[in-house]
Amino acid sequence: MKVLVIGAAGMVGRILSEHLLHTAELGGKPVTQLTAFDVVPAELTSENGVALQIKAGDIADRDTVDGLIADKPDLIFHLAAIVSGEAEADFDKGYRINLDGTRHLFEAIRAQGSGYHPRVVYTSSVAVFGAPFEDKITDTFITAPMTSYGTQKMIGELLLNDYSRKGIFDGIGIRLPTITVRPGKPNKAASGFFSGIIREPLAGQEAILPVEDDVRHWFASPAAALGFLLHAATMDTAPLGARRCLNMPGLSLTIAEVLETLRKVAGDEVVARVKRVPDPTIRQIVAGWPRDFAPDRAISVGFTADTDFESIIRAHIRDSEDVKG
Amino acid sequence: MKVLVIGAAGMVGRILSEHLLHTAELGGKPVTQLTAFDVVPAELTSENGVALQIKAGDIADRDTVDGLIADKPDLIFHLAAIVSGEAEADFDKGYRINLDGTRHLFEAIRAQGSGYHPRVVYTSSVAVFGAPFEDKITDTFITAPMTSYGTQKMIGELLLNDYSRKGIFDGIGIRLPTITVRPGKPNKAASGFFSGIIREPLAGQEAILPVEDDVRHWFASPAAALGFLLHAATMDTAPLGARRCLNMPGLSLTIAEVLETLRKVAGDEVVARVKRVPDPTIRQIVAGWPRDFAPDRAISVGFTADTDFESIIRAHIRDSEDVKG
Repeated sequence: MKVLVIGAAGMVGRILSEHLLHTAELGGKPVTQLTAFDVVPAELTSENGVALQIKAGDIADRDTVDGLIADKPDLIFHLAAIVSGEAEADFDKGYRINLDGTRHLFEAIRAQGSGYHPRVVYTSSVAVFGAPFEDKITDTFITAPMTSYGTQKMIGELLLNDYSRKGIFDGIGIRLPTITVRPGKPNKAASGFFSGIIREPLAGQEAILPVEDDVRHWFASPAAALGFLLHAATMDTAPLGARRCLNMPGLSLTIAEVLETLRKVAGDEVVARVKRVPDPTIRQIVAGWPRDFAPDRAISVGFTADTDFESIIRAHIRDSEDVKG
Repeated sequence: MKVLVIGAAGMVGRILSEHLLHTAELGGKPVTQLTAFDVVPAELTSENGVALQIKAGDIADRDTVDGLIADKPDLIFHLAAIVSGEAEADFDKGYRINLDGTRHLFEAIRAQGSGYHPRVVYTSSVAVFGAPFEDKITDTFITAPMTSYGTQKMIGELLLNDYSRKGIFDGIGIRLPTITVRPGKPNKAASGFFSGIIREPLAGQEAILPVEDDVRHWFASPAAALGFLLHAATMDTAPLGARRCLNMPGLSLTIAEVLETLRKVAGDEVVARVKRVPDPTIRQIVAGWPRDFAPDRAISVGFTADTDFESIIRAHIRDSEDVKG
């Protein structure tokens, strides 16, 4: 099986690519080739005989995307995106990458003709929803984004559904909760602080909390995100019908609950490193995001998530020690 | 006030343009200029001193659209679309006109800079919804289109919301019920038969009914559609918040009820001209369309529709006689 990962240098893309290189199989089939694409070269190393191609370029350039599809990968993960904060600040860049780039990919697949019908796994976001919300968002709740990022992700979902319905490819979209604890450095996502208030204090550094303690949010761990992607890549898509984009399962916690869990795992001294510095811009963006879900469809087709937040923090501590070691 | 009507040669565009030329005012303000744009020149005549410009071109061409916006119309009606049946048959054409054309318009407005902030009235469609439905679709029901046309209309809605939120223009989208009775000749819309089974028999001709008598659908008259457009052009958009696209009010009837109303108005002989010729393609498209609505938001901001179907048929007969006379 030939696999293409678009967005391979990002956090989720790197975890996914490393997993595929390490296991060299997916759903019982050998992974023979992995093409890792991003705007910068992904830092990956071939393992277990998987032919690794590392490519860098701009998905807003149609020729570049045609080049990625030319050898007809069997499975395509489309994870590349300008994240929420940056898409809000740079209108053109967000539309160019998140909308034009996605459309280029789908059109490049279509240009290969009817003999080519790959699985396409698209990472969408809970940012496709906007306030006012249901207490727990159900699978038929209106998608009414309140950011440019959410708008662009939702347009990608609509295109994915339509191209799949037309038999151009076999698409599935997964709306990721906010991935927490993100390893490494902060990115430009407005949601970055959700990880920051755990990661930085554990590393002995101060972290900024730009929103109130009673803000509720929807979380999944990096390990859960990897599980979602692998399941999406291998599951039977027939039960999805025309609605191929799913709310992934996750955990709903307030900031206060997150910090209380951090206190339980790491103590008062660590939690004291969180500094409250309200940021009206981030508050406004976060206020437009959903807080809790009833992801029945995803669960019914086999997606599984974290069971508690304490395990998420403990896994992050373990992984951080692995990296240091 | 300078008004631009994109799609002025279509059925709704022509009714709207004729009304604006005839009244030469809107919401108490004089209409000084009307630019009527379509792929073919609209057949319109200036009245009451309104400066009428009739232009023809392709909205998938960005330069053409820039030319339409160059003199900064205060009010823009964007009614142009490749209709459902044709967008389903010609994938490229549907996306080129319905998606690229709409985006060109929105980008052309943005290119004029922050001093320009027109009202944009966009006609969307109940085709943004897809089965399975609620019995009566509410204002927070998921928009999950099952046709390329519905997908493209929904993408236009998302863009309209985002551009409005960003302060680029003051947009409002109205999801029209199926307009019945359409005057004139059949178009390529899969929904065309809903008018055909009334219009053709009244004109002494046979009409094809391609779906079962128990199919339920959502209707508004041409006069109601005109009313929606005028209200959308003049109303206060502030109460809409971030969700600027509304389900318009209408009437829900089965085909059997439509035919029974036709029998009441015009007699058995007229109804006998309806021939049942099931068409699986049209049946499948129509099966993916909604049947009934609870359009509370639209009603709360002042949109009004027809009160009964008999009046719709009688108005059509009157209008046909006016045309003949």
